[in-house]
Amino acid sequence: MRNTRVNPDRIAADLEALARITDPGRPWTRSAFSPRFDEGRRWLTDAFTRAGLEVALDPGGNLIGTRSGSDPAAATIMLGSHSDTVPDGGRFDGPAGVIAALEVARMLDERGIRLRHGLAVVDFLAEEVSPFGVSCIGSRSMAGLLPEAWLELQHDGRSLGQAMRDVGGNPAAIAARGGIKAFLELHIEQGTVLESSGTDAGLVTTVAGITRIEVVLTGRPDHAGTVPMGARADALVAAAALITDIDAAATARAAQRHFTATVGEFSIEPGAANVVPSRARLLIDARAAERPEMEDFAGWLDARLAALPTGIMAETRRLSDNMPTAMDAGLVAELEGAADRIGASRRRMVSGAGHDAAWIARIAPAAMVFVPCLGGRSHCPEEWAETADIALGAELLAEAVIALDRE
Amino acid sequence: MRNTRVNPDRIAADLEALARITDPGRPWTRSAFSPRFDEGRRWLTDAFTRAGLEVALDPGGNLIGTRSGSDPAAATIMLGSHSDTVPDGGRFDGPAGVIAALEVARMLDERGIRLRHGLAVVDFLAEEVSPFGVSCIGSRSMAGLLPEAWLELQHDGRSLGQAMRDVGGNPAAIAARGGIKAFLELHIEQGTVLESSGTDAGLVTTVAGITRIEVVLTGRPDHAGTVPMGARADALVAAAALITDIDAAATARAAQRHFTATVGEFSIEPGAANVVPSRARLLIDARAAERPEMEDFAGWLDARLAALPTGIMAETRRLSDNMPTAMDAGLVAELEGAADRIGASRRRMVSGAGHDAAWIARIAPAAMVFVPCLGGRSHCPEEWAETADIALGAELLAEAVIALDRE
Repeated sequence: MRNTRVNPDRIAADLEALARITDPGRPWTRSAFSPRFDEGRRWLTDAFTRAGLEVALDPGGNLIGTRSGSDPAAATIMLGSHSDTVPDGGRFDGPAGVIAALEVARMLDERGIRLRHGLAVVDFLAEEVSPFGVSCIGSRSMAGLLPEAWLELQHDGRSLGQAMRDVGGNPAAIAARGGIKAFLELHIEQGTVLESSGTDAGLVTTVAGITRIEVVLTGRPDHAGTVPMGARADALVAAAALITDIDAAATARAAQRHFTATVGEFSIEPGAANVVPSRARLLIDARAAERPEMEDFAGWLDARLAALPTGIMAETRRLSDNMPTAMDAGLVAELEGAADRIGASRRRMVSGAGHDAAWIARIAPAAMVFVPCLGGRSHCPEEWAETADIALGAELLAEAVIALDRE
Repeated sequence: MRNTRVNPDRIAADLEALARITDPGRPWTRSAFSPRFDEGRRWLTDAFTRAGLEVALDPGGNLIGTRSGSDPAAATIMLGSHSDTVPDGGRFDGPAGVIAALEVARMLDERGIRLRHGLAVVDFLAEEVSPFGVSCIGSRSMAGLLPEAWLELQHDGRSLGQAMRDVGGNPAAIAARGGIKAFLELHIEQGTVLESSGTDAGLVTTVAGITRIEVVLTGRPDHAGTVPMGARADALVAAAALITDIDAAATARAAQRHFTATVGEFSIEPGAANVVPSRARLLIDARAAERPEMEDFAGWLDARLAALPTGIMAETRRLSDNMPTAMDAGLVAELEGAADRIGASRRRMVSGAGHDAAWIARIAPAAMVFVPCLGGRSHCPEEWAETADIALGAELLAEAVIALDRE
């Protein structure tokens, strides 16, 4: 393991302690707004306090530990991620970034490094899709971009607004936070680029835009035994060819730039063994770092659907459409310099997943550091990142923070 | 409309009367063992009686109207089909064959044609998949081939055995019926061969065998945004290519001989928009007139599944496997002669659907007459056959019965 100023053992111990706070018999589950989440927050509050941070909750329910700077007028350097998890996954997705941020604060104290800027360590509320069906609640709130209507979303007899109050937030006071000099988020890559290229750190240039397109193909429900092969309008056969082409179209685009397209939801009707399928529903999840690339894909899809076999009709609907978010170019360059100084190999990359950093980017310069994860697995019990890799990422954050503080 | 000895108006009126006996607001639904089915049976009993037939129920719950012959020692010529329907369909699938048989008996009486052989008009019990999950209950019973364990199948707190007793059957007395000289069943084609070739009658040489094969493909559930296209093991993409190939393999075989393969049931897991599908389940319904053709297809499938993309595993299971059933060659020739004498165009063909005739073929010479149906549609509210076509089919039955009687 490389020598770092941050303490890898302390990072490993903290992640292990957080991991142990999981729903009984279900590794690793600490869903936002659950009793387990509250337990994790109590553990974090205690850990932040022991690190000498002043702990508070902001109106969006974000847990923030602050280390004051020598210049009270200077803006805040912010580090953080989220402690909530998806069901059955998330031992590192989220917690790694919170603990790395905490470790940076501890290391600075330990080494007597006083910063001119205040340093904030943030655990954003409910980054994952919450039981209320929405995500990034804390970071949207901090950016002043939480849709007010969401506060009325209901789960288990409780509104999201009430749930936010229950964790200590104050939705009525939500407003865009100012005075952030820079925001940096460490996160596991959730992909295989770093692992397969043997790179220490991924420096995110863009968080990909996500467009979800529903396609419904309609054919004719014929008798599976009596209607000859050539006389059918089989919606599943048409959908199969479409899925093959979507996969090929996305793979061709991915050879040039970051692009993915996945059919993750798929169903047919009537779904009887002896009836030719008359209807197929596909939900396409497409992600691109550049908006024109997404428009090009959508155009390709329209053209593809205009050339369906006889008897097959298509309807499409864009269920959601989020633009790509560029990270701050200056911060990315700052991270590159910091990586070179500490001897960490690095590459620029696109994040295919959404992150809190994409919301904070709306109110402040923001950037992300990805660390390698085993086999690109995430959102599953097998999700794993090596302590040495997380520690090197934390070291990179620390180096960047010190450099930013001197600007 | 051609001149026929049978009365087309009477056939049309009977089919209309039966169609009206349907679940309220649901055309055309008369499921076996339902109150509506009982109402249909009462209507048929009355119609059989008015036609001078002696009505009885056999142990298998089949409604049989008998017209005695001049030679009490002679075997019975049997005609019939079924009056139960699938939900939302079946205005002609079944009833056309029962009413055509009834009309033959009425015409013979009307014209004073006394036969040497007795004539039986049969409404077989529960040909369609019944609420008990099984089909062809009456014809299996008449052949002595109803599995005894089926009598214990339960639906809505009632056993199949009890349901059979409730319609007037006596399952304890089920045995293969002897003394059938010939069995002829008229049925709508449920396909487009007759319609598209402008042929009056299809003479079934074989009822295809049906083999159902379940295929489960297993890949890996990756994050849809972060795992690059080339690094995935997407079970849906693999299944899509497989479905395309199954369709092509079946279409190639169908160019030579009757063959169909349909994936009618299909599902994926986990079925989340942002997760690469890790599992796909296909149910293949394959039908062939010749057993070696089916074995060849099964061999092709095994080879295809041995060449899956990296990371995709396949498991297969043969859920059911029924042999093809040959119709009686002599009876088919008899029907050809009869068709030629009445000036009906005809062609030999394979039935891709199962029928009561395939069960009666186990105990007696059996054959089928298919009549054209609109667009090949069946098992749906739009199912339609022209009265003239059914009447010509009934005329063909009558001509064959008279010829058979003289042998």
